[in-house]
Amino acid sequence: MKASADIGIVPLGAGVSLSAYVAACERVLAEAGLRPRLHAYGTNVEGDWDAVFAAVRRCHETVHEMGAPRILTVIKVGTRTDRDQTNEDKIASVEKKLATDVR
Amino acid sequence: MKASADIGIVPLGAGVSLSAYVAACERVLAEAGLRPRLHAYGTNVEGDWDAVFAAVRRCHETVHEMGAPRILTVIKVGTRTDRDQTNEDKIASVEKKLATDVR
Amino acid sequence: MKASADIGIVPLGAGVSLSAYVAACERVLAEAGLRPRLHAYGTNVEGDWDAVFAAVRRCHETVHEMGAPRILTVIKVGTRTDRDQTNEDKIASVEKKLATDVR
Amino acid sequence: MKASADIGIVPLGAGVSLSAYVAACERVLAEAGLRPRLHAYGTNVEGDWDAVFAAVRRCHETVHEMGAPRILTVIKVGTRTDRDQTNEDKIASVEKKLATDVR
Repeated sequence: MKASADIGIVPLGAGVSLSAYVAACERVLAEAGLRPRLHAYGTNVEGDWDAVFAAVRRCHETVHEMGAPRILTVIKVGTRTDRDQTNEDKIASVEKKLATDVR
Repeated sequence: MKASADIGIVPLGAGVSLSAYVAACERVLAEAGLRPRLHAYGTNVEGDWDAVFAAVRRCHETVHEMGAPRILTVIKVGTRTDRDQTNEDKIASVEKKLATDVR
Repeated sequence: MKASADIGIVPLGAGVSLSAYVAACERVLAEAGLRPRLHAYGTNVEGDWDAVFAAVRRCHETVHEMGAPRILTVIKVGTRTDRDQTNEDKIASVEKKLATDVR
Repeated sequence: MKASADIGIVPLGAGVSLSAYVAACERVLAEAGLRPRLHAYGTNVEGDWDAVFAAVRRCHETVHEMGAPRILTVIKVGTRTDRDQTNEDKIASVEKKLATDVR
């Protein structure tokens, strides 16, 4: 089953700056071939369901190894049976409406 | 790796009433032995990391089979290396503070 | 506009134990009359839209005053125009299906 | 109080294609001066706390007027007292680590 997801990892008990942890997870997601696209509150990914969640698990393992004793990750995951749609397609679909609609 | 999680499944293109789908997912989570505890915006579960996410996958498969063409699930997942803590422990810890603190 | 919501506050840079902060926010939500119902990953509330978000703002102010330099809150908010439905109604609707359906 | 947020609006009972609704909300966020930056699972915004949540309320009002009987919005909101940080700063901070760190 194909999945599209948004992954926002939040290390706790690891200080106020989270960017090193987020970058480490970003590398994990890229190495898994999930086409990560970073934004300010998470990372859009897409791929096989099991590959996505195996990568999220590796993110937790990696960030714990870096010293964070506690991690909270917020995941949005989407699946659909009616048609194929990439994350890029989703964004393009909204942007097309923004460009052409007149209120 | 042990995981605690909150799972909120949202079928799309399936009408305005979601309770039949949520109930079906609830059964999947219970059968997986994840100790589900339902609230108004999701279900708290806990268990082995892989068991949790295999169950979420089965929720998606089940809800698609019931006719929903598209599903969005919001997951919060927590892991910690410093100590064991159940979902009940987390709630009890807050309630204890509410009972004893005087502002 | 009436709103139902789930509010999960996460103080960052404030150590690994979050229960004191969550309890402080819980008090804010109760004092605002939002009928808070705590679970392991947040708190279900309901009330007027503006009252809900004014209370979330007071949660942030309170938790910053307690010493947390950074806060991330995850909110799910629901509105509907087709009918009135309380958080208790939502849970009862799923539980009824769980009790009566036979697979 | 300044807030940075991620807003993902999900109309329910409105069919399987959500892009027209998301585009309408996007316009509301832009008109409110919140510097929206769309991704596949939401929109990053930033501005005054009250302006952010007034705009989310207008998104709900607009999407209900377009015919969606039920809406679920997932919001992540961040505040910090230790320093100013824009959404762009957050992304740049992670990308800098990705560019310079060697594993």
